[in-house]
Amino acid sequence: MHRNHFPIRRQKLAEQFGEHKIDAFFVTSAPNVRYLTGFTGSNGQLLVFPDEAYFFTDPRYRLQSAQQVNCKITIATGPLWPRVLAVLNKRKVRQLGFESHHLNFWNYQSMRAAVSLKTELRSVTGLVERLRITKSPEEIQLIRASVETNSAAFEQAVKAIRLGMREIDLAAEIEYRMRGLGAQKAAFDTIVAFGERTALPHAQPGPTALKRGQLVLIDMGAMREGYSSDMTRMLHVGRAPRKLREMYDAVLEAQLAAVAAVRPGVTATQVDQTARKVLRTAGLDKLFVHSTGHGLGLEIHEPPRVGRKDMTRLAPGMAITIEPGVYLSGFGGIRIEDTLVVSETGCEVLTQTPKLLREI
Amino acid sequence: MHRNHFPIRRQKLAEQFGEHKIDAFFVTSAPNVRYLTGFTGSNGQLLVFPDEAYFFTDPRYRLQSAQQVNCKITIATGPLWPRVLAVLNKRKVRQLGFESHHLNFWNYQSMRAAVSLKTELRSVTGLVERLRITKSPEEIQLIRASVETNSAAFEQAVKAIRLGMREIDLAAEIEYRMRGLGAQKAAFDTIVAFGERTALPHAQPGPTALKRGQLVLIDMGAMREGYSSDMTRMLHVGRAPRKLREMYDAVLEAQLAAVAAVRPGVTATQVDQTARKVLRTAGLDKLFVHSTGHGLGLEIHEPPRVGRKDMTRLAPGMAITIEPGVYLSGFGGIRIEDTLVVSETGCEVLTQTPKLLREI
Repeated sequence: MHRNHFPIRRQKLAEQFGEHKIDAFFVTSAPNVRYLTGFTGSNGQLLVFPDEAYFFTDPRYRLQSAQQVNCKITIATGPLWPRVLAVLNKRKVRQLGFESHHLNFWNYQSMRAAVSLKTELRSVTGLVERLRITKSPEEIQLIRASVETNSAAFEQAVKAIRLGMREIDLAAEIEYRMRGLGAQKAAFDTIVAFGERTALPHAQPGPTALKRGQLVLIDMGAMREGYSSDMTRMLHVGRAPRKLREMYDAVLEAQLAAVAAVRPGVTATQVDQTARKVLRTAGLDKLFVHSTGHGLGLEIHEPPRVGRKDMTRLAPGMAITIEPGVYLSGFGGIRIEDTLVVSETGCEVLTQTPKLLREI
Repeated sequence: MHRNHFPIRRQKLAEQFGEHKIDAFFVTSAPNVRYLTGFTGSNGQLLVFPDEAYFFTDPRYRLQSAQQVNCKITIATGPLWPRVLAVLNKRKVRQLGFESHHLNFWNYQSMRAAVSLKTELRSVTGLVERLRITKSPEEIQLIRASVETNSAAFEQAVKAIRLGMREIDLAAEIEYRMRGLGAQKAAFDTIVAFGERTALPHAQPGPTALKRGQLVLIDMGAMREGYSSDMTRMLHVGRAPRKLREMYDAVLEAQLAAVAAVRPGVTATQVDQTARKVLRTAGLDKLFVHSTGHGLGLEIHEPPRVGRKDMTRLAPGMAITIEPGVYLSGFGGIRIEDTLVVSETGCEVLTQTPKLLREI
């Protein structure tokens, strides 16, 4: 991301201040700080005024912040808060917005005790997230690159699968290949499950060794320059039994129907309902125990949530996953997931990896 | 960890309720939930009463929680909070402790609005962390296994180093080797920095390729069954110049002095001061921009903080790192780090990897 993107983003943020009746906004969520400054470290806070922004970090990040951040930088030894306070007092802030989803109760209390009584603290949510939900062409390019790296790593890993290989070995192989192909790291802990363990939607790879006749679930994502991708594919060692194929086909039908429903103006919950309806017809909706998808970008889960209750209207530039799944204890689970971007007329599925139940 | 450890831990937690004037404690920190139940998933909350504990999660973790958690389990579709509320009301809780460092302001407000006005919400900090700070023999065994895996992976990775290799390639190699040796994953994003980039204390591995005459900093940790290790070592491609050797020797002296200062009854800040004093004598203390170390266990950073202000008295069973470092912009940085456990009479350094500046 070019450095001059960041002042523009901060300007867009400040344009929302009037609506929320705030003079300044205190940003404590790390991905939000990154979005507004380009800072990639673990300890940074940002105070945004309409005319200026102040960035705070600790001495470990002196060099890095000088390279990445183009606003006022304060390096604080010890807690950052006293230095933030000094700016608030100097600028005589009357109404300070803060991210109530990203400030713990303890820190809120410390802040309330420290700032002038004349300063009102206003709980604000989703201000930066609202900007982040629509990706710029540059951001979509990074997500696309992440998706391509991810799919290439998947193909390499599939070739490396051997009978007797453990789930953890395959997970390690996948993440190693990703990085060899240009990812910084995995966007989340790779999920690999064999056999009945596929019925655990968020299985942690373990010592289970691959046997003939087993189902394989792989849920993986690469991170490139901070941006994520997310894909789930299923394999079967040998010919898949009929019951499994039927389950697979139902999930695939739900996935394709949900993808087909994605277009500007449709709500996230409508897309979710589309997947659910297909699975209801197949008698499998009770086994579909999570949402149909989620937004992704600087975080692997970010708005919108493609679930029962999210009324967000989809708009061009939103990046989401579509990933219905069904899980039958003692038998196995099926999930199929792509990363896609809402376009002007529908959507573009970025994930190019074929979606058939691959028999190996 | 054997399943019967968890009720004992919850019992020890409940023994602190009187002191904090609470009837029940609401646990929202994921590592604290894991410590008290064994649950390894990403979405779990726990309500602890002296006579009973209630665990809450979502349908994705139905099977996993049944396998891992031995107390009352509630599977909630949608937010967990309404189900927590139902138990609070049923049990007529008067004083509920909550983890104010692990509950965001938004959720606090929702909780306050939802529970009976007769229920007092008490901000409590460090209740579970106080138990976690002293590791049991079983936990020390897991940390030891993690340290050994980490050191073995380091040796394999050092052998794989080649001129022209990029920082990200070496980081990928390290994490791949770790997992091959039995780690679940890296305990944190592996730091690999070459040349002047070693002056960034928290460098993110990048495309910099290794050249003759360069310094190499590797900061790595393995995770085994949830427990972490942490080690930093320095290599030099070819013979290290004199200035670098002097810097290295000063940091090593500081590290050894700090390790020698670790024993029961000494405060964390005294250990920190010991390292700082050695570096002051060498005229390098201004370049030492972080704490001397930190506790580790289920989290890579947990109490105590071996820094300027932590007055914690060290006690047998505490697991900490000792990692002084100096960073000179435009030149390079040196850090040397071991994982150790406080013993009855001093400490045991778990990390066995030699601490000389290795020339390769």
